[in-house]
Amino acid sequence: MGSSLNKPLADRVQDIDGQSSMVFDPWKIRPEIINSTTEMSTNTSVTHRRRNHRLSPLEKQKMKNIQSLNFTVNDNLLQRAEFEKTTKGFHLKKTFGKWIICLFLGIIVGCIAYIIKTVVQLLQGLKFHYTNYYVSKGLQSEAFLTFSGINLLFVCLSCLMVIVAGPLASSSGIPEVKGYLNGVKVPESLGFRSLFGKIISLILSYSSGLFVGPEGPMIHIGSAVGAAISQFKSSTLGFYPDLFLNYRNDRDKRDFISVGAATGISAAFGAPIGGVLFSIEEVSSFWSRQLTWRTFFCCMIATFTSNFLLQGMGSSPDMHDSGLLTFGFSRLYLYRYSELLCFCILGLVGGIFGATFVFLNIHLNKWRKEKLKQNPFLRLFEALFVSICTSIICYYASFIFGCRYQSNIIIETSVCEDQSNTEMVQFFCPNGMYSELGSLLFGNPDQALRRLYSRTLNMFTLPSLVVFTVISFVFSIWSSGLWVAGGLFVPMMMVGAGFGRLFGQLLSLWFTGIDSSIYALVGSAAMMAGYCRMTICIVVIMVELTEGTQYLVPIILAVMIAKWVGDFFNESVYEHLMEQKYIPFLQTLPPHSTNNIRITNVMSKNVVVLPEVCQVKTLISVLNNNNHNAFPVINRGITGDQRLYRGIILRDHILVLLFNRVFYRGTGEEIYLDENFDFKQFQKETSKKPPQLSEMEFDYYESESYIDLRPYMNSSGITIHNTFSFVEAYKLFRNMGLRHLPVIDINNEVVGIVTRKDML
Amino acid sequence: MGSSLNKPLADRVQDIDGQSSMVFDPWKIRPEIINSTTEMSTNTSVTHRRRNHRLSPLEKQKMKNIQSLNFTVNDNLLQRAEFEKTTKGFHLKKTFGKWIICLFLGIIVGCIAYIIKTVVQLLQGLKFHYTNYYVSKGLQSEAFLTFSGINLLFVCLSCLMVIVAGPLASSSGIPEVKGYLNGVKVPESLGFRSLFGKIISLILSYSSGLFVGPEGPMIHIGSAVGAAISQFKSSTLGFYPDLFLNYRNDRDKRDFISVGAATGISAAFGAPIGGVLFSIEEVSSFWSRQLTWRTFFCCMIATFTSNFLLQGMGSSPDMHDSGLLTFGFSRLYLYRYSELLCFCILGLVGGIFGATFVFLNIHLNKWRKEKLKQNPFLRLFEALFVSICTSIICYYASFIFGCRYQSNIIIETSVCEDQSNTEMVQFFCPNGMYSELGSLLFGNPDQALRRLYSRTLNMFTLPSLVVFTVISFVFSIWSSGLWVAGGLFVPMMMVGAGFGRLFGQLLSLWFTGIDSSIYALVGSAAMMAGYCRMTICIVVIMVELTEGTQYLVPIILAVMIAKWVGDFFNESVYEHLMEQKYIPFLQTLPPHSTNNIRITNVMSKNVVVLPEVCQVKTLISVLNNNNHNAFPVINRGITGDQRLYRGIILRDHILVLLFNRVFYRGTGEEIYLDENFDFKQFQKETSKKPPQLSEMEFDYYESESYIDLRPYMNSSGITIHNTFSFVEAYKLFRNMGLRHLPVIDINNEVVGIVTRKDML
Repeated sequence: MGSSLNKPLADRVQDIDGQSSMVFDPWKIRPEIINSTTEMSTNTSVTHRRRNHRLSPLEKQKMKNIQSLNFTVNDNLLQRAEFEKTTKGFHLKKTFGKWIICLFLGIIVGCIAYIIKTVVQLLQGLKFHYTNYYVSKGLQSEAFLTFSGINLLFVCLSCLMVIVAGPLASSSGIPEVKGYLNGVKVPESLGFRSLFGKIISLILSYSSGLFVGPEGPMIHIGSAVGAAISQFKSSTLGFYPDLFLNYRNDRDKRDFISVGAATGISAAFGAPIGGVLFSIEEVSSFWSRQLTWRTFFCCMIATFTSNFLLQGMGSSPDMHDSGLLTFGFSRLYLYRYSELLCFCILGLVGGIFGATFVFLNIHLNKWRKEKLKQNPFLRLFEALFVSICTSIICYYASFIFGCRYQSNIIIETSVCEDQSNTEMVQFFCPNGMYSELGSLLFGNPDQALRRLYSRTLNMFTLPSLVVFTVISFVFSIWSSGLWVAGGLFVPMMMVGAGFGRLFGQLLSLWFTGIDSSIYALVGSAAMMAGYCRMTICIVVIMVELTEGTQYLVPIILAVMIAKWVGDFFNESVYEHLMEQKYIPFLQTLPPHSTNNIRITNVMSKNVVVLPEVCQVKTLISVLNNNNHNAFPVINRGITGDQRLYRGIILRDHILVLLFNRVFYRGTGEEIYLDENFDFKQFQKETSKKPPQLSEMEFDYYESESYIDLRPYMNSSGITIHNTFSFVEAYKLFRNMGLRHLPVIDINNEVVGIVTRKDML
Repeated sequence: MGSSLNKPLADRVQDIDGQSSMVFDPWKIRPEIINSTTEMSTNTSVTHRRRNHRLSPLEKQKMKNIQSLNFTVNDNLLQRAEFEKTTKGFHLKKTFGKWIICLFLGIIVGCIAYIIKTVVQLLQGLKFHYTNYYVSKGLQSEAFLTFSGINLLFVCLSCLMVIVAGPLASSSGIPEVKGYLNGVKVPESLGFRSLFGKIISLILSYSSGLFVGPEGPMIHIGSAVGAAISQFKSSTLGFYPDLFLNYRNDRDKRDFISVGAATGISAAFGAPIGGVLFSIEEVSSFWSRQLTWRTFFCCMIATFTSNFLLQGMGSSPDMHDSGLLTFGFSRLYLYRYSELLCFCILGLVGGIFGATFVFLNIHLNKWRKEKLKQNPFLRLFEALFVSICTSIICYYASFIFGCRYQSNIIIETSVCEDQSNTEMVQFFCPNGMYSELGSLLFGNPDQALRRLYSRTLNMFTLPSLVVFTVISFVFSIWSSGLWVAGGLFVPMMMVGAGFGRLFGQLLSLWFTGIDSSIYALVGSAAMMAGYCRMTICIVVIMVELTEGTQYLVPIILAVMIAKWVGDFFNESVYEHLMEQKYIPFLQTLPPHSTNNIRITNVMSKNVVVLPEVCQVKTLISVLNNNNHNAFPVINRGITGDQRLYRGIILRDHILVLLFNRVFYRGTGEEIYLDENFDFKQFQKETSKKPPQLSEMEFDYYESESYIDLRPYMNSSGITIHNTFSFVEAYKLFRNMGLRHLPVIDINNEVVGIVTRKDML
């Protein structure tokens, strides 16, 4: 054994100040020239509001249970030995497998979208069937009781589903997915339980008439399916088939989740390109060209599957991959240059409304978190209360305005489109007449949107549009964050279409030739951009939904302005939700306020290091005495008391080595690769749930044995010098998807370590 | 002065083998267990054809004159001192400035697109005006002479323009732009000379009837404008205004070039979203969310500007941001599920044709490079020869087939679109009749495409489509690579539309209800994907061009299949062109064949290092004796003979320090920041063309002075340990956009350096 083995085998590099205690370090700077920034200045100027925010100790504590993911390749000697043997076939097979997984992912997500849409249609059909039975008889209170009763039942079941499956099945789940793709795992967020809970809760809540949409949850569902299908294991059952072994790592899983998120939104909107762009622009933190292609393929499969099923599985030979909300196609009338100014105003309004929505919704959620906590009864009660209020308003609002004659609606004949969406809801009106608000609120949201986008001239009166906009805005704020599954896209589109059409009709009082349906469309886009701050993705989704590119310029203009205006006030709703959920999200670039910080100011000096060859009993005591997830492996150097960086090893891998009793059989400094524990075996064991230290028992002989960490540690682990600035270290950390970043000094001694939470 | 200053002041770290000569390095591996890969194995299996290819010494030599770019921030002490002073306003101003630059970029590129389109229309109009004068009189040879004479004149001028402006003004310029965005600068490629040369050459070549399109060059033009407007300097005139100082670095320039490339294609196609996706999917190697937004904004401005100008600058108040090739909108008939199989076949054909195109074009270009070299006469002669051949074929091919009755064309009435594009070319036919091939070949390509996409039933006969496809395929291959500016998008769309319509009409012989115009559309998309291997970008461009999303599934399907099939045979035409032009392009991931290589196998051990404080005469002799672009700065350590890594400094920065005589005034190891040479000054000087060493003269006192490199060297330079594998180092290099990557050993001594060319 080398002399280094007789030294104390693990030590803490504590209280080492890389700046001052070094014997030879000319990195001293005369303090009168540069003031060294010893701690984070809290009053530094920033360009963005939220970025002012520094984590409080409580928040840091709450983030503790969210584990970071290993997106880096553990490039150890075992893997290198394995690579010597791999052939062209292996890589081809792995790539081919990814495409096959994407194919199945697309089909499954498409089927789920189909099931959700069909069941929702069925449930809503039933609801309106029974309600309309009383409506047609003119029995107001019976009709209301039936309507609100069914709604209440659906919401109750939906909320119970969330209570059973856990709160992660509620809301949209986008913050959790975004978090995972950024590098942290919210426990249980992509598990089977939340998947099934979310599907059922979504079906019920969307059928219940609450102001929630199916798109957000579909993203979560897609991601969960992506995670499940690519991993294909069950830690509960201890089922780990070898077939998917090569994909069973955080990096490949992340890619499939990226694909899944895109696929979910594609299937929900019937928008394959919009889905890909959503993943690129909003949810994914890591992207590659290869991923673009696979995502695109998968989105196409999902859209096709869901359309194929919805159109009766080929029972009609003609197919139509139309958008959900066909908008009609006019070549005769478009818009004038002067109207571009109006579209800018719509963008401004969308931005302000969006920012207001974020502000109110986030504060409501904060209140919920403080008052209702995780108490299922209070949560259920709240959901039911919102349901009753929604039912009352949606039902009785229609009585404010009188009935109007269906025959008075003027249809634009120049538009090349079937105008079936001008069929309005009769409600309690006499035959041949229709109720304005009933047509918007008493029905499903898709129909309401279609009516708002319909190219007719005098379908709605101004007051009814005002009332509709206010109602949908208030209830969207209130419904988001309830313990039911539900997203925000459709409610926000309704709000936007409401004020857009209102604005268009207002304009047409003074100007001639204004087509208010275009304003409704642009308003929807502006409102969506205003609350979630996406741009190109929203534009493409609107184009795919409405099947036409004629209104590209107005939509893009409004979306860009809405985003700028919204960003002026606050950040997107997902950013705020992630903050509220204590998800440690790393933005692309660090805030400007960190410009003056050096890495030595933020790094943790409390590094526990391990020698290259380490005794079992030392390993056990080190693992027991701290909860670090990675340990730099060091060499004692010539003097025998140095901590020269050699590599880094993960706690889980040490546990696997201990569990499998992979002891060192050599003498001196040779590295042996254990034939019984080759790369395949190592990969298999590390892809399982890590063994518990408490479940392992070692006899005296075993505890005295040594384990050689060198073949298993990451030899290509990235390190930085202690001269780094925080900003450059952040970029490295973020771009490479790191989890741990050891800091070395001029002698290659480990003086600190940076983890994800130090970067926030 | 410290003791280290008396040592020899710069030395070469040569012949140091990190593997064996170290006193204390346990990284030895028993050879019988792991065979160390001492050199690149040439017979290792790879998954991709071209990746088998290793650079020959000749190729490496040719790559020498292509300099790498500095995408990393030079995070030195000066910058840190400057950051202490910067306020919120500074960052806000910088961000705001980027948006303003994008605004102007969009307007300028839009105007250029307008100018090109208008002038081309004018020139083509003149050409056909004179030719048709003789045609209408029935004078065949006079008409031909006029036609071919004008074509010849245009080609001649176009080629002369390239000869004057340099060969970089020819072809599309996409490889050069891709190269720049990947991190290397082809000299002159984005300069004013090639910009103007390209614009004029493009106008002439596109008017001349050659099978070239305007889109590729527009990408180059957009990039060059982006580079020019964001830098706003002239090294020839020595004009360096301070206003744009903050953007005058390779990193910001790169981002504006990314934006410019997207804007160019947006303006050319009238496709803002397609442009953004083109930049994301094809040309850009580095991307961020912020860039998405700016690119999107800029593309919108460019598209809007060019449409606004084309539609008569608001002379008509109505506006229409239509695609160039409106396709018509049918809701009654779409396609059947069974036809999806046919679209797959089209994808297959597109892939095979695309791969064939790449193969033939690349070999032709290789032949050109070997035989014609850079000889302007041969190049001019070739261009003229191709022009004459094109004129002959395009003119006389029409006589092969008889005339057909215009009134026989059956127009699909279910399609909601003005059918003005069914107006055919009469050529030498009697009144009321038209010439089939004349309608396709004797006119401008836009019209030909519109006719191929027109929703009519019996416009073309099968033989004429066969002849058209063959002619356009052959001439596209031949025309690409001539010394005239010209891209491939439009010619490839014509080939694809030709065989697509042919296939559709063939099918309609056996099956009823086939709409061959859809096949033409899908064929175009498949052909484009087949030659350039883009996917989502092509789909979006096709949608934006044809203004409808009804045929999304067939297009996506054909594009994906064409890409797969093409990739089976070779790589995209741009990859091959980059190889031919010796542009050292780094793919996202290294080839699998490099899995077994370690960084010590590829790194250059011939590192020239500099001490932290260095004498002027030493610096001069070091700079004179080698042509390295960066030098690791080292510390002598306690023993005085170590080479401990401290930072890295660029040659250009040393030259600036020498030129400005920034000598060290301190004693010992203190670092002084020179008040007369602060960050602003440093930034200003380094953004200029670097001073020449030969132009500097130092007296004896100056040569004996010292320069302290510490305040100017990059203290946040990334290093790797010599235990790294090649693949992980490659990822780091590629993801962080590095130019130099020093390799350190267990003692932090510099043992090697990796540059871009070592990564190939």
